Amino acid sequence: MRIVPVRLGERSYSIKIGAGLLARLGTECAGLTPARRAAIITDANVGPLLAPAAQKSLRDAGFDPLVITLPAGETAKTLRSVQTCYDQLAAHRLERQSLVIALGGGVVGDLAGFVAATYLRGVPFVQAPTTLLSQVDSSVGGKVGVNLPAGKNLVGAFYQPRLVLCDLDSLKTLPPRQLASGLAEVIKYGIIYDAAFFAQLERRLPGLMALEPRFLAAVIARCCEIKAEVVGQDETESGRRAILNFGHTIGHAIENSSGYGRYLHGEAIAIGQVLAAKISVRQHGLSEAEAGRIRRLLVQAGLPVGIKLSPARREKLFAAMRLDKKVSGGQVTFVLAKGIGTVDFGGRVPPEVLEAVLAEAGD
Amino acid sequence: MRIVPVRLGERSYSIKIGAGLLARLGTECAGLTPARRAAIITDANVGPLLAPAAQKSLRDAGFDPLVITLPAGETAKTLRSVQTCYDQLAAHRLERQSLVIALGGGVVGDLAGFVAATYLRGVPFVQAPTTLLSQVDSSVGGKVGVNLPAGKNLVGAFYQPRLVLCDLDSLKTLPPRQLASGLAEVIKYGIIYDAAFFAQLERRLPGLMALEPRFLAAVIARCCEIKAEVVGQDETESGRRAILNFGHTIGHAIENSSGYGRYLHGEAIAIGQVLAAKISVRQHGLSEAEAGRIRRLLVQAGLPVGIKLSPARREKLFAAMRLDKKVSGGQVTFVLAKGIGTVDFGGRVPPEVLEAVLAEAGD
Repeated sequence: MRIVPVRLGERSYSIKIGAGLLARLGTECAGLTPARRAAIITDANVGPLLAPAAQKSLRDAGFDPLVITLPAGETAKTLRSVQTCYDQLAAHRLERQSLVIALGGGVVGDLAGFVAATYLRGVPFVQAPTTLLSQVDSSVGGKVGVNLPAGKNLVGAFYQPRLVLCDLDSLKTLPPRQLASGLAEVIKYGIIYDAAFFAQLERRLPGLMALEPRFLAAVIARCCEIKAEVVGQDETESGRRAILNFGHTIGHAIENSSGYGRYLHGEAIAIGQVLAAKISVRQHGLSEAEAGRIRRLLVQAGLPVGIKLSPARREKLFAAMRLDKKVSGGQVTFVLAKGIGTVDFGGRVPPEVLEAVLAEAGD
Repeated sequence: MRIVPVRLGERSYSIKIGAGLLARLGTECAGLTPARRAAIITDANVGPLLAPAAQKSLRDAGFDPLVITLPAGETAKTLRSVQTCYDQLAAHRLERQSLVIALGGGVVGDLAGFVAATYLRGVPFVQAPTTLLSQVDSSVGGKVGVNLPAGKNLVGAFYQPRLVLCDLDSLKTLPPRQLASGLAEVIKYGIIYDAAFFAQLERRLPGLMALEPRFLAAVIARCCEIKAEVVGQDETESGRRAILNFGHTIGHAIENSSGYGRYLHGEAIAIGQVLAAKISVRQHGLSEAEAGRIRRLLVQAGLPVGIKLSPARREKLFAAMRLDKKVSGGQVTFVLAKGIGTVDFGGRVPPEVLEAVLAEAGD
């Protein structure tokens, strides 16, 4: 087992990464709270596969765990699902020290985290992410929330888990498209923070895609370390943390303007990263060669790197970008790369550059 | 104008108390944020009276203020109202530094605060409380939230305002029953923290009820000071802050089991305080004489001090108490008084004592 510490003062916690960890969920949780009531929030895809084992582990450790199963997918990440959870937590009489455990991918983690952050003004929260994407991204950093009809993640909180448990075994049942979606974030960490890690991915991507256990654990741990370092420098996203959003300004807008669920998150931000790299070439001194390496690695991971947009869809995409949380003074800002491993945040991109890059996004 | 500083490190803010302050809302807000978009959240009672002046003041200071008017009363303090606010904030394109301003009583403040705490994971929040109750209580301390069908304030957050503006003029239009409801919290501060303040209230209650401006401002400031001191010692209610809940364990259960809106908050906690005083006489060494003074002052303020309960309603009340957030290990805990000015939290009350006190609650 690898352990990545996330240092956030009194809100510090550990990310534990290894095979067979779900069976240890109960023992791990028992060390976190004296309360015996707990709730596992999961979805209709993951629940049938993994909830029974999680529930058994909790029962064996003396917990009385409720399982709440939500519909699968981004479309369930709504206030209505949150309300369903609240009502069930109240019926199960969860108390202030009772645990809420997210068992699933990023959608489940974001939603369960928001429920945990707000139920009784905050109850202890444990993440058991089951997808590559959530293990390397959404389970670290404390961003939780749900979508509004007007946009993705427009409602939420900063709320840290007490523990993150990444069981590598849960990745074995992951459909290839979901695995690739996670790889988009893995590659991102190389671009924003660690050129050597990026180069390692270029050399060993096939091994990673085959879930070679030692390399897989090392990659997840490195991603979590990078995210933890960045988050540790800036917990509430007032500054540097924004670099984690490389590729996300356009990526979120693609997800939003296409209707949730059409693109997986990683697919949308793969396209977003390629476009952010193109903008970086024009505006921020990124070399064509490095932009090419970014694009090639994403292609190798099985990810889409372009999007054909009609003028009407391009307009919709612009509208979605203006609603993004990262808008400041009415202007959309970008994370731009100087080179692989070095990025800056807060870049203001002239509308004509953005339009030109979007116009050739389908090429 | 009186200013009470609330010291909470980087989340410190000021409470400003005086006549005619609403006209200064815009200037005060302009010092808080560079953003120009703002939203006033108010209700159907207060909005028609005060929103135009608030809106004008904001416009004059360069803001573009949206007004969201919710139905009045505790029954509107729901996730559905929260959703309505989110949708309007998104349509008005509020950004991360845009202001949300609560203009109204405690219900509006709690709800608007929760909206501010969660929209875009938190936007700056200003309280303009318009009732005595909200000026002395709910606008200080950072507790925000909404009700669930299962109970009051079961969902929420700890979120500090950037500024609280208490305009004394807004109390002039307050119905007497609402004013009395506020007095229940004013009296509570004497009981939990300041025997001299309690004695001053005994001497000068009629002047306060006549809204004598200097005494009124001094009383509100003293209440805010006490609350700020208590909250400053314990921001997230892990310990000492619980003393603010004197009378609230039973009070909340009365509100909840009677259907929201039948008792005003202050009315329910007036009854709760009389019953907590009775329990304190039996369990905590409070003298009969002091319990009598508490009861008399509440009566003098025009508040109810008893409640006739059928066995069925008593059962309902018990059930509501067990759902209270303050339940720990399945046991209901109480704040109990040793004397006027001195209370302790975490008191465990044997069920038979609670039943005996409730049985004579109608006397």
